[in-house]
Amino acid sequence: MREVAVIGVGMQKWGELWEKSLRDLFVESALLAIKDAGVDKIDSMYVGCMSSGLFTGQEHIASMLADYLGVNPAPAARVESACASGGLAFRMGFIEVASGMSDVVLVGGVEKMTDVDGGAATYNLATAADQEYEAYNGLTFPGLYALMARAHMERYGTTREQLAEVAVKNHDNGSNNPHAQYPFKITVDQVLGSTMVADPLRLLDCSPITDGAAAAVLVPLDMAKSLGKKPIVKVAGSGHATDTIALHSREDMTFLRATAVAAEKAYEMAGVGPKDIDFAEVHDCFTIAEICVTEALGFFEKGQGGKAVEAGKTRIEGEIPVNPSGGLKSKGHPVGATGIAQIHEIVTQLRGEAGARQVKNAKRGLAQNMGGTGGSALVHILEVA
Amino acid sequence: MREVAVIGVGMQKWGELWEKSLRDLFVESALLAIKDAGVDKIDSMYVGCMSSGLFTGQEHIASMLADYLGVNPAPAARVESACASGGLAFRMGFIEVASGMSDVVLVGGVEKMTDVDGGAATYNLATAADQEYEAYNGLTFPGLYALMARAHMERYGTTREQLAEVAVKNHDNGSNNPHAQYPFKITVDQVLGSTMVADPLRLLDCSPITDGAAAAVLVPLDMAKSLGKKPIVKVAGSGHATDTIALHSREDMTFLRATAVAAEKAYEMAGVGPKDIDFAEVHDCFTIAEICVTEALGFFEKGQGGKAVEAGKTRIEGEIPVNPSGGLKSKGHPVGATGIAQIHEIVTQLRGEAGARQVKNAKRGLAQNMGGTGGSALVHILEVA
Repeated sequence: MREVAVIGVGMQKWGELWEKSLRDLFVESALLAIKDAGVDKIDSMYVGCMSSGLFTGQEHIASMLADYLGVNPAPAARVESACASGGLAFRMGFIEVASGMSDVVLVGGVEKMTDVDGGAATYNLATAADQEYEAYNGLTFPGLYALMARAHMERYGTTREQLAEVAVKNHDNGSNNPHAQYPFKITVDQVLGSTMVADPLRLLDCSPITDGAAAAVLVPLDMAKSLGKKPIVKVAGSGHATDTIALHSREDMTFLRATAVAAEKAYEMAGVGPKDIDFAEVHDCFTIAEICVTEALGFFEKGQGGKAVEAGKTRIEGEIPVNPSGGLKSKGHPVGATGIAQIHEIVTQLRGEAGARQVKNAKRGLAQNMGGTGGSALVHILEVA
Repeated sequence: MREVAVIGVGMQKWGELWEKSLRDLFVESALLAIKDAGVDKIDSMYVGCMSSGLFTGQEHIASMLADYLGVNPAPAARVESACASGGLAFRMGFIEVASGMSDVVLVGGVEKMTDVDGGAATYNLATAADQEYEAYNGLTFPGLYALMARAHMERYGTTREQLAEVAVKNHDNGSNNPHAQYPFKITVDQVLGSTMVADPLRLLDCSPITDGAAAAVLVPLDMAKSLGKKPIVKVAGSGHATDTIALHSREDMTFLRATAVAAEKAYEMAGVGPKDIDFAEVHDCFTIAEICVTEALGFFEKGQGGKAVEAGKTRIEGEIPVNPSGGLKSKGHPVGATGIAQIHEIVTQLRGEAGARQVKNAKRGLAQNMGGTGGSALVHILEVA
């Protein structure tokens, strides 16, 4: 397999972008990534999108977006793994470049979730849960993550305040991110006083509904070197794993096994371990998610994720900064785009271009993206070549 | 890139399978393919499915199906390119094995279209057309293909009877296929007398709504050789291309450019041309589609596809047998599964196991799968190694 580099990234400011369609969102980000990469052709393209069919009545989007981007008749494939669709698109692009099949591959993610004709977002998102056993019985994602939170609190003594600290930290970081949907700071008291959604999770524990896209350009490492741009960001490791999509089928509701397995594969490919990671972008769709993810990635012992965030270990100046971008919580969560936006942040940090939210000495970053309650997970490790 | 072989295929009898869920359909076919391959592990899995979200309210299906198949936590990815989702899954598996990332990759396709809670099939399928410019204005797929048929008749003198001959031939072939949804013969008069759907297309010009799945197992060619099963079927060429998904945006409504471009790439990779193909499985979602496809693949000159079928050139005993399986018309068209079922037929033919529908001296077969009105296309060439 050839080594692979990321030579361009692009995304717009996320939010409720009523004036932009799914096409607009994707093409805008893709053009930014292509401009950033400085390439004049795209050999192949992957689009991560969870549910354009339910949201906008449009499937077959990869061909449509390739055409609107102006790369028709290039191959273009849509991939879907619920909220991990973006991370999956990144992996597909990585494999295609590594294989030698293509040299310049655009990977993007997009989701148009507001101001659409389709079903309500909460219904559409619940299709990432087990329809016959979870959604049919009324469980939606806030409810599922609430069950995980209650289990974590019961078993490990994680507190309501520790959950809130995740949101507070991520909004602190996101307040310095020009792409964030909600670039403002919040306090623990505001989280604890926000509307109850699914006990113990309140409104400010939940990532928002968002319109947005993000894109990146992958090429063989040798080509990246010949282009001469510094620093070169290479893909050091890629891991992908699955789990039951139904929460009740797992032995331990607080353990994200797919994330742990994907991380193990990515660490192995990169020849590193959790202690070698300088910072991470992880899937904080709910505050409890970030706590469970940091444990599954091996940053902290099982059950210690809540205490770690409370102690400031995951702040930008902490021992392992998590979600310097603001995470899904502050930046927004257009589900198909999230995995690629994580890559956008990692590349921005590794280039030293993250401004007020820059992580010091950022040489190796990890992106963790997951679908549903963790039924699928993608972990990528990027480093300065 | 490593060379890749198909060592196992599996599918059930297709139809209105009200007693089987999407999970049942996929797992049943996958187990048949795994048994046929004789492998005891699956490293990675791809599922082609167009619209489980709209049909069954279930996205995130790759993880769910991997779990039900018993390969959790293996990587599993869903890919979507409308009715070309199966062909796309095959290509993804091919690239993954070729890359060296994985050795044993299961590729499958599935669609559960009848007896479901979701929207009507015609609405769901229309999401493969351009929602804003075609579907919104009332165009569904019979209507779009009717426009293509009218244009072909007008420009090339293709007759109503020639369209019917496609259906008659494919039902002749399908009558010998135990997996076919409609394994019976029909006559030209029956086609011409069937209910009008969208002038000039009648009911018997249209492929049916179907529940079904199909699966195949891919491994490196070297591994296939070491397993010692004969004959070994290798993937000689793979091509993938896109076009506008909106019919009105094309310069020529009768020319399937994505199919032509994908074929060109596949021929080039295999080092062969149309004259070297012994038989083909092509995407006859409507009778006119097969005519346009055989022209785009270079089997016949532009405009000559109708005359060719009328002259019997595409019959099993003709110069280039097309759809010996019965095609989408007789075998059925569970959209995500169709591209993999084509591979199932090619492998069955190359092994000489096709019984009464066996093509003589079948050494090299071509599969062409497309989405929408041809906005995406996959072409694969398989041959006896």
